[in-house]
Amino acid sequence: MSQSDPQKHEGHNPFGELLGLHFTSIEDGHSRCSLEIREGHFNPYGVVHGGVIYSLADTGMGGALYSRLKGDERCSTVEIKIVYFRPVTSGTLTCDSEVIRRGRRLAFTESEIRRGDRLIAKATGTFSIFKADGGLG
Amino acid sequence: MSQSDPQKHEGHNPFGELLGLHFTSIEDGHSRCSLEIREGHFNPYGVVHGGVIYSLADTGMGGALYSRLKGDERCSTVEIKIVYFRPVTSGTLTCDSEVIRRGRRLAFTESEIRRGDRLIAKATGTFSIFKADGGLG
Amino acid sequence: MSQSDPQKHEGHNPFGELLGLHFTSIEDGHSRCSLEIREGHFNPYGVVHGGVIYSLADTGMGGALYSRLKGDERCSTVEIKIVYFRPVTSGTLTCDSEVIRRGRRLAFTESEIRRGDRLIAKATGTFSIFKADGGLG
Amino acid sequence: MSQSDPQKHEGHNPFGELLGLHFTSIEDGHSRCSLEIREGHFNPYGVVHGGVIYSLADTGMGGALYSRLKGDERCSTVEIKIVYFRPVTSGTLTCDSEVIRRGRRLAFTESEIRRGDRLIAKATGTFSIFKADGGLG
Repeated sequence: MSQSDPQKHEGHNPFGELLGLHFTSIEDGHSRCSLEIREGHFNPYGVVHGGVIYSLADTGMGGALYSRLKGDERCSTVEIKIVYFRPVTSGTLTCDSEVIRRGRRLAFTESEIRRGDRLIAKATGTFSIFKADGGLG
Repeated sequence: MSQSDPQKHEGHNPFGELLGLHFTSIEDGHSRCSLEIREGHFNPYGVVHGGVIYSLADTGMGGALYSRLKGDERCSTVEIKIVYFRPVTSGTLTCDSEVIRRGRRLAFTESEIRRGDRLIAKATGTFSIFKADGGLG
Repeated sequence: MSQSDPQKHEGHNPFGELLGLHFTSIEDGHSRCSLEIREGHFNPYGVVHGGVIYSLADTGMGGALYSRLKGDERCSTVEIKIVYFRPVTSGTLTCDSEVIRRGRRLAFTESEIRRGDRLIAKATGTFSIFKADGGLG
Repeated sequence: MSQSDPQKHEGHNPFGELLGLHFTSIEDGHSRCSLEIREGHFNPYGVVHGGVIYSLADTGMGGALYSRLKGDERCSTVEIKIVYFRPVTSGTLTCDSEVIRRGRRLAFTESEIRRGDRLIAKATGTFSIFKADGGLG
């Protein structure tokens, strides 16, 4: 069930590459991904854009769930809510994601985004699971 | 109260530039922004990454609210929930955002993201409003 | 597809009866339900408890979706986010709900709760659709 | 900062009494409340109504935050998202809530609702904090 090669999951992610996001682990319903903050991540107020932090969560949740899918299963994001606690302007962001419930057709995930040991944001998400040859909900 | 020069708001948005996002209107509690889908927006499954669509919503909400702020006010995203209806693989995404309630310290916003006339995603958000020289909640 | 007898849907809802909630229409992906505020609805601060307003939304969404189900289909709430705009202390609350997208296995709904013409709260929800003899996600 | 008498907080909650909800602890940013499922809690499908479970979360979050307020501070729910994992038809529901961040004007909370050791639902919320003599956001 687990996925031993996070690079394989990461290797096909053009948007992840645009952001500089990379996975350090994808295993057994958990994932960790991170990115180093750079100029292109800033919003008009000079802090990291909420979309960058969200993208860590969405990508990390997908990675965590990927490790719980069978070979012929695919998943897609149904909805995510993200809450921001603190602005961040430099350093490395790390996102820990977890599958908290995996049903037959739906899975529920959570992410925590940190800079060092400071919690920057949290997110909760719902994903749809379907067969590679089937359709979405 | 309205903002006649959307380029000015857009001009300082490095992450918007990274995505290719641009505003076409910011006025009276509403905004419209869009981006043309390109290779760098894709996720591992070959569809536009949820983070790209989310970034349109977050940025568009901020633009819509910006048009309702006074000169010494600033805003930041508290939380956003986004729901995805359909995958999208090409074309131009347009995001219409609106301030549905603007209180003294909190504002509530909504976004609809479309490709042509097809609804791709919807988002609802809460923003904090504060004085430029004051702090966050 | 539509449901001409809202009383039938309402008749089996013990919690709705506890709250004093009743439907005035359930048709074609829309519903309207309402309740008259009474002493038992208040929270410790003397305003209507958020759970009362939420229950209107959850019930109303279920009613709206019910009108779009086939005879052998059932639905259950996956998640709902509700946002509160104003406290309310008396009068009648009316909740208008709508199915904004009905897929094969998932449906997306929205509710607006008003007192008179004042918007009190808005909610967005995801529902799971399944066969009466099948299981949940 | 903590609140040693949960009954005091509970004593003025008419909606809590209507539901049969009671607190067993409110202390230091945490709370536990519960209710015994009874006939009046059911929805049309014969399972506990989502509004009952939500009300545990909303009430429990308010209790947890109450223990972190100063004497002249009040709070109100800004928004809550709740996710349901399993239907429930009998027994006692217990809700553990926690303040995960308490800012000056905003607080963020989480709740887990269980029946025995089975997780039934989770919720995340945002609350506004204001002075008793001041206004809402």
